[in-house]
Amino acid sequence: MKKIIIINGPNLNLLGKRETDIYGTTTFEDFFDDVKDIYNGEVNLSYYQSNVEGELVNKLQETGFSFDGIILNAGGYTHTSVAIRDAVAAIKTAVVEVHISNIYAREEFRQHSLISAVCKGTIAGFGLDSYILALDSFLD
Amino acid sequence: MKKIIIINGPNLNLLGKRETDIYGTTTFEDFFDDVKDIYNGEVNLSYYQSNVEGELVNKLQETGFSFDGIILNAGGYTHTSVAIRDAVAAIKTAVVEVHISNIYAREEFRQHSLISAVCKGTIAGFGLDSYILALDSFLD
Amino acid sequence: MKKIIIINGPNLNLLGKRETDIYGTTTFEDFFDDVKDIYNGEVNLSYYQSNVEGELVNKLQETGFSFDGIILNAGGYTHTSVAIRDAVAAIKTAVVEVHISNIYAREEFRQHSLISAVCKGTIAGFGLDSYILALDSFLD
Amino acid sequence: MKKIIIINGPNLNLLGKRETDIYGTTTFEDFFDDVKDIYNGEVNLSYYQSNVEGELVNKLQETGFSFDGIILNAGGYTHTSVAIRDAVAAIKTAVVEVHISNIYAREEFRQHSLISAVCKGTIAGFGLDSYILALDSFLD
Amino acid sequence: MKKIIIINGPNLNLLGKRETDIYGTTTFEDFFDDVKDIYNGEVNLSYYQSNVEGELVNKLQETGFSFDGIILNAGGYTHTSVAIRDAVAAIKTAVVEVHISNIYAREEFRQHSLISAVCKGTIAGFGLDSYILALDSFLD
Amino acid sequence: MKKIIIINGPNLNLLGKRETDIYGTTTFEDFFDDVKDIYNGEVNLSYYQSNVEGELVNKLQETGFSFDGIILNAGGYTHTSVAIRDAVAAIKTAVVEVHISNIYAREEFRQHSLISAVCKGTIAGFGLDSYILALDSFLD
Amino acid sequence: MKKIIIINGPNLNLLGKRETDIYGTTTFEDFFDDVKDIYNGEVNLSYYQSNVEGELVNKLQETGFSFDGIILNAGGYTHTSVAIRDAVAAIKTAVVEVHISNIYAREEFRQHSLISAVCKGTIAGFGLDSYILALDSFLD
Amino acid sequence: MKKIIIINGPNLNLLGKRETDIYGTTTFEDFFDDVKDIYNGEVNLSYYQSNVEGELVNKLQETGFSFDGIILNAGGYTHTSVAIRDAVAAIKTAVVEVHISNIYAREEFRQHSLISAVCKGTIAGFGLDSYILALDSFLD
Amino acid sequence: MKKIIIINGPNLNLLGKRETDIYGTTTFEDFFDDVKDIYNGEVNLSYYQSNVEGELVNKLQETGFSFDGIILNAGGYTHTSVAIRDAVAAIKTAVVEVHISNIYAREEFRQHSLISAVCKGTIAGFGLDSYILALDSFLD
Amino acid sequence: MKKIIIINGPNLNLLGKRETDIYGTTTFEDFFDDVKDIYNGEVNLSYYQSNVEGELVNKLQETGFSFDGIILNAGGYTHTSVAIRDAVAAIKTAVVEVHISNIYAREEFRQHSLISAVCKGTIAGFGLDSYILALDSFLD
Amino acid sequence: MKKIIIINGPNLNLLGKRETDIYGTTTFEDFFDDVKDIYNGEVNLSYYQSNVEGELVNKLQETGFSFDGIILNAGGYTHTSVAIRDAVAAIKTAVVEVHISNIYAREEFRQHSLISAVCKGTIAGFGLDSYILALDSFLD
Amino acid sequence: MKKIIIINGPNLNLLGKRETDIYGTTTFEDFFDDVKDIYNGEVNLSYYQSNVEGELVNKLQETGFSFDGIILNAGGYTHTSVAIRDAVAAIKTAVVEVHISNIYAREEFRQHSLISAVCKGTIAGFGLDSYILALDSFLD
Repeated sequence: MKKIIIINGPNLNLLGKRETDIYGTTTFEDFFDDVKDIYNGEVNLSYYQSNVEGELVNKLQETGFSFDGIILNAGGYTHTSVAIRDAVAAIKTAVVEVHISNIYAREEFRQHSLISAVCKGTIAGFGLDSYILALDSFLD
Repeated sequence: MKKIIIINGPNLNLLGKRETDIYGTTTFEDFFDDVKDIYNGEVNLSYYQSNVEGELVNKLQETGFSFDGIILNAGGYTHTSVAIRDAVAAIKTAVVEVHISNIYAREEFRQHSLISAVCKGTIAGFGLDSYILALDSFLD
Repeated sequence: MKKIIIINGPNLNLLGKRETDIYGTTTFEDFFDDVKDIYNGEVNLSYYQSNVEGELVNKLQETGFSFDGIILNAGGYTHTSVAIRDAVAAIKTAVVEVHISNIYAREEFRQHSLISAVCKGTIAGFGLDSYILALDSFLD
Repeated sequence: MKKIIIINGPNLNLLGKRETDIYGTTTFEDFFDDVKDIYNGEVNLSYYQSNVEGELVNKLQETGFSFDGIILNAGGYTHTSVAIRDAVAAIKTAVVEVHISNIYAREEFRQHSLISAVCKGTIAGFGLDSYILALDSFLD
Repeated sequence: MKKIIIINGPNLNLLGKRETDIYGTTTFEDFFDDVKDIYNGEVNLSYYQSNVEGELVNKLQETGFSFDGIILNAGGYTHTSVAIRDAVAAIKTAVVEVHISNIYAREEFRQHSLISAVCKGTIAGFGLDSYILALDSFLD
Repeated sequence: MKKIIIINGPNLNLLGKRETDIYGTTTFEDFFDDVKDIYNGEVNLSYYQSNVEGELVNKLQETGFSFDGIILNAGGYTHTSVAIRDAVAAIKTAVVEVHISNIYAREEFRQHSLISAVCKGTIAGFGLDSYILALDSFLD
Repeated sequence: MKKIIIINGPNLNLLGKRETDIYGTTTFEDFFDDVKDIYNGEVNLSYYQSNVEGELVNKLQETGFSFDGIILNAGGYTHTSVAIRDAVAAIKTAVVEVHISNIYAREEFRQHSLISAVCKGTIAGFGLDSYILALDSFLD
Repeated sequence: MKKIIIINGPNLNLLGKRETDIYGTTTFEDFFDDVKDIYNGEVNLSYYQSNVEGELVNKLQETGFSFDGIILNAGGYTHTSVAIRDAVAAIKTAVVEVHISNIYAREEFRQHSLISAVCKGTIAGFGLDSYILALDSFLD
Repeated sequence: MKKIIIINGPNLNLLGKRETDIYGTTTFEDFFDDVKDIYNGEVNLSYYQSNVEGELVNKLQETGFSFDGIILNAGGYTHTSVAIRDAVAAIKTAVVEVHISNIYAREEFRQHSLISAVCKGTIAGFGLDSYILALDSFLD
Repeated sequence: MKKIIIINGPNLNLLGKRETDIYGTTTFEDFFDDVKDIYNGEVNLSYYQSNVEGELVNKLQETGFSFDGIILNAGGYTHTSVAIRDAVAAIKTAVVEVHISNIYAREEFRQHSLISAVCKGTIAGFGLDSYILALDSFLD
Repeated sequence: MKKIIIINGPNLNLLGKRETDIYGTTTFEDFFDDVKDIYNGEVNLSYYQSNVEGELVNKLQETGFSFDGIILNAGGYTHTSVAIRDAVAAIKTAVVEVHISNIYAREEFRQHSLISAVCKGTIAGFGLDSYILALDSFLD
Repeated sequence: MKKIIIINGPNLNLLGKRETDIYGTTTFEDFFDDVKDIYNGEVNLSYYQSNVEGELVNKLQETGFSFDGIILNAGGYTHTSVAIRDAVAAIKTAVVEVHISNIYAREEFRQHSLISAVCKGTIAGFGLDSYILALDSFLD
């Protein structure tokens, strides 16, 4: 059974807790539980979130030599963090970059990701389904 | 049954015909046939390729009001074509942008897509699997 | 009687066929017929549209040595086509550049026209009336 | 009868007074008188010229709530004046930007207009006829 | 009693006279009278407005050696005027730059102020209260 | 009574502890105590400082749905943190950005704030008084 | 006997047909016939011209695996076509880029070729002789 | 006797009136009187100063067809005024640009002059002697 | 005896633990122990590593007023951290910047250090010897 | 018999002396002797090499009024030398620029030549054959 | 008697020897002799020219501690030489930069001088008179 | 015994001869003699200085195949010389780049070295000690 972790960066912990009239009241934890159920028996799925850049580096290092796949949504650090880029490049496990929204249709400073170049691939714009497509990319 | 079309831009017709020692001898047509078999009964899948920018615009216009989904790999036009961008923006059908390679890890002029901003989402870097993930994004 | 042609670039064939609640159901062909009626006897007016950059170059070459005026809306190619610019510069007939919308008020990549510098003049922002003003510029 | 004003910016008062061997001896005042005669009974046409940026702002404010149309050739301020842009944006009357020469074929700093984005439309390159085409754009 | 002057640049004279459904019918003169009443006995407050860049320079020179404070909203000249910057730098009186709106959230050309670097401080985004906060900054 | 918090970013904890010959020996804590006394009964004032970008995001999230106002001096993160910008944009409470020095008169990389665009307003250059002016902006 | 093809891009079909007072009345076809005569028995020389970017891609693909050399003057597409660059990079046959004029002495947008980097070499500025030098580069 | 005018732009009227400990108490008027005395009988010398950009344009137009030489220090408008550039280019009289300080050693935005390209020559960095050198350039 | 600390930034904790076939199995801790032995009696050497930007700021503040020297390899934060730059500038102890690899020969975004300008000096490209050279720079 | 000189810039004297396993042991002198033999009786061929920019200028001046052709490989000065450009522009003899490697496929700073614009033509990427093609360009 | 030297950079030795129909047959040496005569008894004038950047540095060092003035026309090195800039900054003697033509009206790369910022002043555009004005600037 | 040479570029010959009140009266020759004494028996140390770019290239070529190490301070050529970069890249001997001052804290054009990328390492900011640290880097 494949060991895969979803690592979420800053402000993604607010999902489902703010602007619930728009985004609904599903938190990322709820979504994660559903996904875990669906892939039950097939994938050993973990989840980690932090607003601290260096803690994301820590977690990438911890899991990056033993897990089978990492799904990374680095949030606002996507565009500014050389440290996360270096961590992704240093570890063995393949990393798939995901974004909930279509970052290429937003402000100019959000259209360039420092992390994409060292990831296996990028999936952006499919809402929470971006995570599921990323998960599928690790399966056959 | 959903009607979906894959539209491929310039030079993608060479897949499986050149550098076969690296890329293998599977042509895109072979791959397409396999995919059609897998999704048989579930998706009505078509395929179109052209090296001519304006013919891609034509095809987007033809299919963009009646199909349920368009999977677009605009190849080299990705980075330069305002005409294709305008076509994608003008049509009703959602378009998912795919790339076989991780374009963000290539030459600088390949790291910016004029098309991403008007697509539903982008999937890049998973080889031919990028097309399958795109297809999945149109299903539930 | 002056021979004048309107040459329209990519996606302008969709006018009046999409978003008819906003733009109305008048197609460019309808508009063209009305204009032809008004200038009947005074101008010998033709119309050509293509989504293919090179076909626009072809048409400019065909008409550019015998017509009295060319009205060119190059659509998305306005901002990227050195080939069309070169065609306009190479022919004898004066070319007037028109745009339906105010391109200077849109995305930044739409604010620079490669073609303006080699045209006689530019008219932008007056809706379909831009074509009529261009036509008038060829009469006294 | 429509009330329309032509507002000319810096150095346009020199027309017909300098380089008369090239431009002829028609001053803008002469041209204006001719135009007034032609549109007599149809348009109530005024004319204002100043070399002072702020006085152009003053005149735009004065006429911008009661006139039916403003034809603005801001001359050298076209490329540098946020103040004129703000005045055009603040007033009710539609403003059409005109230029005698094809500004897009001149020095690079003359190819960007700060004012175009807030005008109804732009007409450039038709000599003094640019003013007449602008005038026509306010009539049917 | 401190002598302080508010100097307003182009188009700020339109406040309360246009778009009154949005901005209300309070003119800057009304607002100024209210402020004068509140600070009555504490501050000797003057007010000057001009659309002419050079007249703003004149007023800065006139008041810049005898007043205790200058509150400057240079409007559209904020982003383009080296002349006003030089005047602020040349005079003795401290100048506080104010803006009614949050200029940093507007068009890119409005996000850089040529004047800030030579002012004592900047206050932006608080509506007309920006002026009151600036006034307070000159008191204890 | 309004609940307001001052959030200070990196290195602001050194105030009054270094270069005391220039800045004096008043620490930010001393200053904060004085301010609290002055606004006693009127404002319920808190204070938080961290050198860690993610902890500033955490604190903005914690206070951003229940407090009446946030005064944020993000220090060096002002110019680089998309994560803090996103946190400010995501929360309900209005944030006022303050800077002790006139950042627009310093090194070029300090002249652009990523945070200003999503704040209510900005106050810079008034020394520690910047905080008091920000506080006043939340009162009437 | 070596098989070599000359591929000409947009507007090169106008040579000898326009501005004959400057360029003379030799068309490219005339020139081509002369060259064929000179190299008769030594080189099997073909010629292709199109104004359509994608047709140039088609021709490069068609000839790029069986010919001994390609001489490419991509005209206006030289500066904008990623699709042609990709075709040149994908094929086996070496491509020599030629230009009739010295493109480095012309407008700035003409000074950068997207194609040079993937060609064997570049020859520019020698008039029609550029083609002959290119041809010689394929012989000993 | 040659007729020459010195035209000074914004803030140059403050010379000798501010920072007199550094610059001395010689005003430009004092300096001008001395210069007039020295060149008495040889040059008919006038002087004009304004803080208003458009008034400088006016004066250039007034004197630009009858005077033998113009010495222009456009102050802060040097770097921003297309209107003054156009006036210099439109008039007949040769204009020499002067600057008191070495503008190339100051802030970056002061290192580019919009006016130099249309002047006969530029003299910068010699203090008030810059004016005398300019004057000499008009004599033999 | 001099008190000196080595402060290492993100991902430097992976040295000797990954890619051991290339870099060997010497961890930074091993290297540090060797260095401590060599300089035993001469230098009181400490070591700190963190992946968290703010913790590096904390450590710089803690040691920056009592230590005799700081050797800083800020890793990926070198290129993005204004906060670390400000900490280095605020403290009393001289800081020497080191890099194991030649950062100037790597990706463009790694060629500019925000920190160099406020350090005493920079040493880059000598592998782990960079630390020893830095240490020597603090001794005579 | 035509008098032609090859002028080589810095480091081209190392050819055939370093990296002989890759480039072979043919020095430029050897190559030059061979070329001289081939063109014996037809061309009077000279050769000059210097690492000093100014000596290249000297040689261009010396030969630039009496020789029939100059073949210039300015090496590293190609991208930085305004002095060599000025020399090429000042002399009478036509200069052909050559490069052994395809400079357009190398580092970005090597992709722009300051010299091309004033040369007759440019030949790059054909190894030492670039010199022979250049020589041929001076013959019929 | 003041000791002053004129130092001329690359290609200025060609004056009067080429394009004599335009520039006349006066060489710089002729001009220099005339100037020496005029200032005879008043100035001890020397002259030096070299095409070699480093020799100009040598001469600046040689004369820069004993002469009363240096007049420098660095020709093409004006725009590229940090070495000459450093020499000018290092020496004691004031340097006046001169240019024969108006460099600000020429190609863009000629409009920025690396040297101006460290010179006493700049004189450009007056033909050979630029040298005389520079000489005068060293006298009273 | 290792053979090492120090190569100094332009203006470094002025050390200890100018501004002796700041830099002292130690010339580089004095310093070099001291260093030679210290490393006597261990290193065979040479020294070369030139103001001429091409002579530095010559010396790099002369010593670059037989010496054990080169210490290069290219002075002002650091930022502009592709020729020196190419020489460093072409030779066998490792080159260490040194700078006396912290170039990263100086003018922007001094913050980028063209040479660093091809050197073994860089040492900057330690005064003359930079040379000693470089020397140490070649020893064990």
